[in-house]
Amino acid sequence: MTRSFVDRHIGPDAADLARMLDLIGVATLDEIAEKAVPASILDSSGLDVLPPALSEHETLAELAKLAATTTVATSMIGLGYYDTLTPPVLVRGILENPAWYTAYTPYQPEISQGRLEALLNFQTMVSDLTAMDVANSSMLDEATAAAEAMTLLRRASKSKSPRFVVDADLFPQTLAVIETRAEPLGIEVVSADLTQGLPEGEFFGVAAQLPGASGRVVDWTDMIAAAHERGALVAIGADLLALTLITPPGEIGADACFGTTQRFGVPMGFGGPHAGYLAVHSKLARQLPGRLVGVSVDADGDLAYRLALQTREQHIRREKATSNICTAQVLLAILAAMYASYHGADGLKGIAERVHGHAERLAAALGSALVHTRFFDTVLAKVPGRAEGVVASARAAGINVRLVDSDHVSIACDEATTEAHIDAVLAALDITGQEPVRVDIADRTSEYLTHPAFTRHRTETAMLRYLRALSDKDIALDRSMIPLGSCTMKLNATAEMEAITWPEFSKLHPFAPVEDAAAILSVIKDLEGWLAAITGYDAVSLQPNAGSQGEYAGLLAIRQYHLSRGDDHRDTCLIPSSAHGTNAASAVMAGLRVEVVACRPNGDVDLDDLKAKIDDHAERLAAIMITYPSTHGVYEHEISELCAAVHDAGGQVYVDGANLNALVGLARPGKFGGDVSHLNLHKTFCIPHGGGGPGVGPVGVRAHLAEFLPGHPLAPELGSGSAVSAAPYGSASILPITWAYIRMMGAAGLRQASLTAIASANYIARRLDEHFPVLYTGVNGMVAHECILDLREITKRTGVTVDDVAKRLADYGFHAPTMSFPVAGTLMVEPTESENLDEIDEFCEAMIAIRGEIDKVGAGDWPVEDNPLRGAPHTAECLVAEWNHPYSREIAVYPRGKSRPKVWPSVRRIDGAHGDRNLVCSCPPIEAFSS
Amino acid sequence: MTRSFVDRHIGPDAADLARMLDLIGVATLDEIAEKAVPASILDSSGLDVLPPALSEHETLAELAKLAATTTVATSMIGLGYYDTLTPPVLVRGILENPAWYTAYTPYQPEISQGRLEALLNFQTMVSDLTAMDVANSSMLDEATAAAEAMTLLRRASKSKSPRFVVDADLFPQTLAVIETRAEPLGIEVVSADLTQGLPEGEFFGVAAQLPGASGRVVDWTDMIAAAHERGALVAIGADLLALTLITPPGEIGADACFGTTQRFGVPMGFGGPHAGYLAVHSKLARQLPGRLVGVSVDADGDLAYRLALQTREQHIRREKATSNICTAQVLLAILAAMYASYHGADGLKGIAERVHGHAERLAAALGSALVHTRFFDTVLAKVPGRAEGVVASARAAGINVRLVDSDHVSIACDEATTEAHIDAVLAALDITGQEPVRVDIADRTSEYLTHPAFTRHRTETAMLRYLRALSDKDIALDRSMIPLGSCTMKLNATAEMEAITWPEFSKLHPFAPVEDAAAILSVIKDLEGWLAAITGYDAVSLQPNAGSQGEYAGLLAIRQYHLSRGDDHRDTCLIPSSAHGTNAASAVMAGLRVEVVACRPNGDVDLDDLKAKIDDHAERLAAIMITYPSTHGVYEHEISELCAAVHDAGGQVYVDGANLNALVGLARPGKFGGDVSHLNLHKTFCIPHGGGGPGVGPVGVRAHLAEFLPGHPLAPELGSGSAVSAAPYGSASILPITWAYIRMMGAAGLRQASLTAIASANYIARRLDEHFPVLYTGVNGMVAHECILDLREITKRTGVTVDDVAKRLADYGFHAPTMSFPVAGTLMVEPTESENLDEIDEFCEAMIAIRGEIDKVGAGDWPVEDNPLRGAPHTAECLVAEWNHPYSREIAVYPRGKSRPKVWPSVRRIDGAHGDRNLVCSCPPIEAFSS
Repeated sequence: MTRSFVDRHIGPDAADLARMLDLIGVATLDEIAEKAVPASILDSSGLDVLPPALSEHETLAELAKLAATTTVATSMIGLGYYDTLTPPVLVRGILENPAWYTAYTPYQPEISQGRLEALLNFQTMVSDLTAMDVANSSMLDEATAAAEAMTLLRRASKSKSPRFVVDADLFPQTLAVIETRAEPLGIEVVSADLTQGLPEGEFFGVAAQLPGASGRVVDWTDMIAAAHERGALVAIGADLLALTLITPPGEIGADACFGTTQRFGVPMGFGGPHAGYLAVHSKLARQLPGRLVGVSVDADGDLAYRLALQTREQHIRREKATSNICTAQVLLAILAAMYASYHGADGLKGIAERVHGHAERLAAALGSALVHTRFFDTVLAKVPGRAEGVVASARAAGINVRLVDSDHVSIACDEATTEAHIDAVLAALDITGQEPVRVDIADRTSEYLTHPAFTRHRTETAMLRYLRALSDKDIALDRSMIPLGSCTMKLNATAEMEAITWPEFSKLHPFAPVEDAAAILSVIKDLEGWLAAITGYDAVSLQPNAGSQGEYAGLLAIRQYHLSRGDDHRDTCLIPSSAHGTNAASAVMAGLRVEVVACRPNGDVDLDDLKAKIDDHAERLAAIMITYPSTHGVYEHEISELCAAVHDAGGQVYVDGANLNALVGLARPGKFGGDVSHLNLHKTFCIPHGGGGPGVGPVGVRAHLAEFLPGHPLAPELGSGSAVSAAPYGSASILPITWAYIRMMGAAGLRQASLTAIASANYIARRLDEHFPVLYTGVNGMVAHECILDLREITKRTGVTVDDVAKRLADYGFHAPTMSFPVAGTLMVEPTESENLDEIDEFCEAMIAIRGEIDKVGAGDWPVEDNPLRGAPHTAECLVAEWNHPYSREIAVYPRGKSRPKVWPSVRRIDGAHGDRNLVCSCPPIEAFSS
Repeated sequence: MTRSFVDRHIGPDAADLARMLDLIGVATLDEIAEKAVPASILDSSGLDVLPPALSEHETLAELAKLAATTTVATSMIGLGYYDTLTPPVLVRGILENPAWYTAYTPYQPEISQGRLEALLNFQTMVSDLTAMDVANSSMLDEATAAAEAMTLLRRASKSKSPRFVVDADLFPQTLAVIETRAEPLGIEVVSADLTQGLPEGEFFGVAAQLPGASGRVVDWTDMIAAAHERGALVAIGADLLALTLITPPGEIGADACFGTTQRFGVPMGFGGPHAGYLAVHSKLARQLPGRLVGVSVDADGDLAYRLALQTREQHIRREKATSNICTAQVLLAILAAMYASYHGADGLKGIAERVHGHAERLAAALGSALVHTRFFDTVLAKVPGRAEGVVASARAAGINVRLVDSDHVSIACDEATTEAHIDAVLAALDITGQEPVRVDIADRTSEYLTHPAFTRHRTETAMLRYLRALSDKDIALDRSMIPLGSCTMKLNATAEMEAITWPEFSKLHPFAPVEDAAAILSVIKDLEGWLAAITGYDAVSLQPNAGSQGEYAGLLAIRQYHLSRGDDHRDTCLIPSSAHGTNAASAVMAGLRVEVVACRPNGDVDLDDLKAKIDDHAERLAAIMITYPSTHGVYEHEISELCAAVHDAGGQVYVDGANLNALVGLARPGKFGGDVSHLNLHKTFCIPHGGGGPGVGPVGVRAHLAEFLPGHPLAPELGSGSAVSAAPYGSASILPITWAYIRMMGAAGLRQASLTAIASANYIARRLDEHFPVLYTGVNGMVAHECILDLREITKRTGVTVDDVAKRLADYGFHAPTMSFPVAGTLMVEPTESENLDEIDEFCEAMIAIRGEIDKVGAGDWPVEDNPLRGAPHTAECLVAEWNHPYSREIAVYPRGKSRPKVWPSVRRIDGAHGDRNLVCSCPPIEAFSS
């Protein structure tokens, strides 16, 4: 029998499944659904609108046919998106390499040193080029980076003014996202031409761009000084390529710097994904949102990298968080960093000079029609009454330039621009060529990218080996199951991934004419429909480029709905105590007050407390945010009652879709009580995690909220909603992944995937319960698609912690489960449907063996401070040193012999606190490694 | 300054180069050329016909434009080439994965266990499906496999008859290559319809096909029995997919079985590369040509794989060799084996049944027009007078079927065939559909592919991890330099590799109409011209699909030239004692007698001995084969005199192009005295080694030999020469690699590459000479592109052997140089131009450190039987055991600390002799590993 894609995606085969069902004590997968999922919500309808499943080759053929309907014109539109030449070694070595793209967020740093080093290179690249002290890695796009800069300045500013001044020459999408973010927080955005001086009155911060949207290059030194004098802080949005020539913001006094790294080798992709950046002066370092890689030391005193200052992050600070960002753009940040490593300082400068030279040629030809005489890559041409004609002529020559208004066009040059393109544009402008004038903008004197990370990997052989050596340090899905609760690390099939590097999707500017984008728009339209059908909602927006952004967009829709009905008093959002911290952070950003609802001892939401809270807040109730199945991994049976209670009180129900992998084909949040949900395409729908991004967080809503879905200033077809991302369709270029997954699975396959995921979780729960008690189960003793193993009693008795178990799993060749979420002292395990029984059993055997080790500690055979668990993870290096432990080297590193390929952690347990006390967030000098 | 591709390909940058030249004692690269290369041959001309260098993106754009000129029709031509659906996980995981494609032949088995396991799977797959005892891995294509089967049967047969009987229903290209090979060896090929019985008279062997070229399926049981009775042995060419249904040759008495594994996931690629196979009864195992993976044990007694019975091979047996095959088709053999692993027995059978079902539908519709009623995938239709019309109609519908003659067409179904294709073919035949008839050919009763290798990797996740785990065991170019003398392991740039998986190149049938092949034919035409310009020859054939085949084709041309002039007495080929064994083996296969010419103490050919040999053989002199620069890594300064002496005596000069990497842009063999050369595109011109193939071995000749270049029965445009490969253009689909390389380097870049390669070799020679004496240098003390390090004195004094040093290098993270070729007891080092100075210096430091270890053995600090060299390589496993060595664990595995990424050998030193004594060439049972 030939296998379908469904059989390739789903791990357990019929024989595996029979064994699993037997242990669980059910006869069929359907019986699992009946036992685990409340009958009141069980609903297999809706999926009949999905097209029948195709094979991998048929699906790729269909996508190729779609792609063939579009011709991608050369983009010279600019506005923050530029064509770039990704070195082939980086395309194949990163974007097309599962060792990089299937990795998880590096929360287990000992088995993530490769991508942490790459991210440290990213941070160093950004801080070098901007001359700022500390850069994070990374932001979701330039516009959200700007908005985060705004709120960061507000937190840091001594001014209590609610006013934020922005230069009128910001990119329109940057301004739009700033305005979206400002409104619920009570920030007043004031736009002005800052070359004419700062506006009157008090303000807490200022944002300006370098170069501006018009292409002009302004020296902001005086403006920054003036703002500082008036008690305000300043953020500059800066183009990193321009900064290879122009004096960087850090040298003219800027407090923060934001932007995108897209043009460093990351395809435009119809708007995303790309890595935004945010960099700050050292005095603001602890205020930085998002992920920050820092240097620390391991148990042997060797340098090691890990995520720094995690206590800042939303999952810790909840409603006190200053940002909701969690998924970032790791894969693209790594790509940009490697692009900089490959080109080096001189290479980047050479590219910048070539780009600038093209612009100079245009400028010379324009003569007096040139509007701004200082520019980097973009020239603004005054062509009175002729602008539309020029744009049309250029387009006829295969080039998209930007129509500014009826009298102006702007033309942006980039790495891919050739003399022939300039010739064609000049012809469209109806100007004959002239000798280029020199417009010397190169006033930067400081050095950058001098670290060996940017000088040693300049040949393809050297880069190839660097990428291999780094990825060899990490455990990604290509080596082990990654049983992370709530994170759904499932197969990212090759056939799903193939189209993302096709030029018809990757070389599209987000503001290109719609006919250029016909293929991707068709994918988007299909997906909106399919996801609506799967979730039971009436409308879906694909704009949010992370789950957090989906949450935010969904809560904004609720907020705007209430406002539209005059219910401006509805400002309270109920959130169960078990919720992910992002929920609370998003609610606050959406202008809501958070009230926590208690959970019962069995983990379910305490309906009595809920009802009491509803009564308490009465007219102020805006919404409840619940995750379903719950973050406890259980289908709460009172979900319908819960939704009804909130609705009855005039509130809206937000169903967090993080756990949708347990619902697809079984129940639909839009039908069982939800008004809004966000989905994580990088969880349920096979977009790879990329080491911590990109993600896509679509938001689905019922009809009454549809008008409040995200809009975009440059995409009027999206309606009048507020923009939450820089690009109209967010991370559009990775949507073909999800499209292909749904196309290959079909309705029955999707449902089978959900049921298998539930079966696998229940199998693990049954196998491990006697060794690590499963904390919560639903009626019939069933868990959903994940289970929580409770170690608290074990820790109390033996001193062995969840950390010890997590690190010890690396010695066994596994990535650890989720630690201490949603309950401290526990491990949450989600196998997903893609792991076959061999792997699941290996994992269970490892956990059981670890329990045996814990018992030896408990029995006093091994001291609590010196045992294989506390010593974990063990490197190969530690084997060659003298061995003074009460356990053998063999037990340390081959606890189960050669049952699976050995993956060597490259460092031992990392001391996070040390790194937070001694914050270093850029590449340490090479000498630091010679310990 | 932005870097060109030349800067990415060539390792040393300007600063590196300055350091290197300084040590060598020259001022410029040009000075190296003047000092190393004889002035008499130095010649930078000829390269001006090459187009100017393009960037990577420009080159890919040009190839894409070329590809866009062709539309690939669906192929139903058959004749041994079938469309196949390569699972995307295998395309990305193998064909597009440098960890697999940049590997070298697994002569260092301790760091090659991954690909050795994959090849063992290949052998198991072939022997299971054919039911033969032993299969090799692999042959170059089906036709050469058939020819090798013929010579194998001749060696093994008791009959002294020169006659070899072939069934008339063999593929025409198989017959052609058999006839080419037979003629110089004095074998008489007799073709007959064997369904009518065997011909009269004696014969040593028989070959028949299952299915035949016509598609008919014949039960050969009685024929085989009859042949055996008459003292002949029988080889059956069998389609592996058909064998999932049909009783295999091994069960009906065949002595040997040959064929191709192309349709197991390997794209047709306009004819290649694909892995051919040859499998035999156990009594013939030691007669098998080519590479054979066998199971043995390592120093710790654990199971380990390595190449078995190497003493059979041409590099050992020289003129006594029975075949000249060295490079095989490893990468494609691995792909085919993984295809079988991924589909498993039931999956393959399912595919076969679907293919057969399509053929049944055609057969039913044909009714009485069906010529053969027993068929697998191919039906022969009698359409009197209409055949050309049917072919044209099918083609109009986008399908190529085969025109057999004016009354017959044949239609071959394959894995990619759909109902729609069948509908279209029926329409072209002007037949309306009918219900399919069942033509039950499934008489196979034996099981196959029951080993876990074919049951455990059936989901994409499982396969992904299997591929990763295997490749992690190996050192390929993505982890270390591979400094193999004569093998030129240089960068295989990603941009060069990209096009090979494009459908315009990969989905082409070799006998497709020329308009389908316009793009690849244009690449071929360019390459023929460029390679002729580079080598100075007048004509080039790209048909030979390995260097050995190029040699053979070149020698055949010489033979045929002499014959054409009536010089049939010219049968003697002079070969210097330093030559690679393949030279001698090829000469014998081309019907020549080998006479060895002595070398002088300095390594050069002894001109006096040469002249004496010329005199001795006088009128019998056919040719001399020399390698230039010599296999000793030196530019012999008397090359012109040598060539003249041979020419004066009426002989032809064959210049082996193995070392062309030291000549490109500096000297041209076609101008300095050569009449023929073969090139290795997988050495000099960047086609990756693929773990031991594919290769391409074009042959270039001067004008007087052009008419004797390879022809092909199905490609009349190639002239009347003899076919040496199954496909007219050999391994056509990988030619874009070389095309892209030349296109991106340009004339100046190619010359710079040669000079840099020479500079790097001289730098290493200077650095290491005091530690390991450099055996041979030319005038001015210069080596060419490689150098030989002489360990014989060291070995004599200390007992430490070249083997010890080679294995010890693995502990240092390096692949070993070439061992004991061309001089026993030496190591030959070739850095190539792609290694930067960091890596070269690391290698030198490792070698110097090893010399220090040797000295400690010599001084008696460590016993000769227990020291880090003899113990090498060391696995991580050996660290955990008790340690009873006079050297520490640290010295064992981190002799230079963490100066480079540690690559752990997966086994310790392997006992080759044990494996040869206990020959096991298929997957051992899993239990065997639990040691």
